[in-house]
Amino acid sequence: MYSSKYLELLIEELVKLPSIGHKSAQRLALHLLRAPREDALRLAEAIRAVRERVAFCTVCGNFTEQDPCPLCVDPERDSTVVCVVEQPVDVLAFERTGRFKGRYHVLGGALSPLDGTSPEDLRIRELLERLRPPEDGGEAAGEIREVILATNPNVAGEATALYLSRLLEPLGLRVTRIARGVPMGSDLEYSDQVTLARALEGRREVE
Amino acid sequence: MYSSKYLELLIEELVKLPSIGHKSAQRLALHLLRAPREDALRLAEAIRAVRERVAFCTVCGNFTEQDPCPLCVDPERDSTVVCVVEQPVDVLAFERTGRFKGRYHVLGGALSPLDGTSPEDLRIRELLERLRPPEDGGEAAGEIREVILATNPNVAGEATALYLSRLLEPLGLRVTRIARGVPMGSDLEYSDQVTLARALEGRREVE
Repeated sequence: MYSSKYLELLIEELVKLPSIGHKSAQRLALHLLRAPREDALRLAEAIRAVRERVAFCTVCGNFTEQDPCPLCVDPERDSTVVCVVEQPVDVLAFERTGRFKGRYHVLGGALSPLDGTSPEDLRIRELLERLRPPEDGGEAAGEIREVILATNPNVAGEATALYLSRLLEPLGLRVTRIARGVPMGSDLEYSDQVTLARALEGRREVE
Repeated sequence: MYSSKYLELLIEELVKLPSIGHKSAQRLALHLLRAPREDALRLAEAIRAVRERVAFCTVCGNFTEQDPCPLCVDPERDSTVVCVVEQPVDVLAFERTGRFKGRYHVLGGALSPLDGTSPEDLRIRELLERLRPPEDGGEAAGEIREVILATNPNVAGEATALYLSRLLEPLGLRVTRIARGVPMGSDLEYSDQVTLARALEGRREVE
């Protein structure tokens, strides 16, 4: 088979990326070969820079260029409420709403026996550490009074939320779960039955 | 908005890749941040190596680590027939069949007024150069007797094949077009009407 060792090596590395199959990797590799030289080298350099300059916050687990991250040290933010999410992208999603001014905690995934993700693989120990009152040797973060479970509304996320709510129950904190219901701007006609059932269950008095 | 300059730069570069939107770029960037350090650096290095070690063959236009490429200099291959394709991936596709032992010529695209691809953007001048007989100052490649037009069976590819066939007509070569018809293993029931019409038009005596 006609090929190039260097192209094959690049394809091999590209295939490791999420949702990039062999055909896509081949197309991307040939694109990088044909694209302006500076573009290709800038991409290589950007990957290197990210690994050199960006890391994860030891408090919340979000990506950051300084540790602890700006969201964890910002005195303007409410330290009494922590929003627990699966991934850094979820932090970005909440930040885009501009409606949450508390702290975050990134688990790094969700419980999934099928994928082999167990509680030890998530940043649950770090969460408990943050919730420990100061007199117990915990950080000043002992001031946390509410934990919002904002894992994804799918099987793994729901299981994780349930697991965490059981785990946090003895701590005497307010533990909440984000509302699941019909998304804004959607048509009820096209809502699946699980979502509609949730929307009924979670109904509230009109204020 | 919370972010990291280095992550943003990486996302910006990833978005330039074909069929990578902003959401995919964000997911890829965060993956590269979380993946084993060696994997990320290996990808950066592979991109750099491809740009340093791989280039395009000045004869056929395919990617190669040496110029002319192995396919152009292989004495075992038939120099009298040239298969004209749009992209290097098409060369790989024909090589996978193991049924073509001639030379290739990569155009680098297809004629498409909508995308702004005109004849000057394709390696057509280089093709004519290869077809020029040696007594005319052309290379030894003047021995070419058949040109197979193997551009894609879509609007741009058909237009390119038609354009080339008109252009090559005065040269007195055999100019052929790959057969278009029902693909092997498919159901006639699901074939579109243009393909079926082509299959009828291109019918041949049963041998």
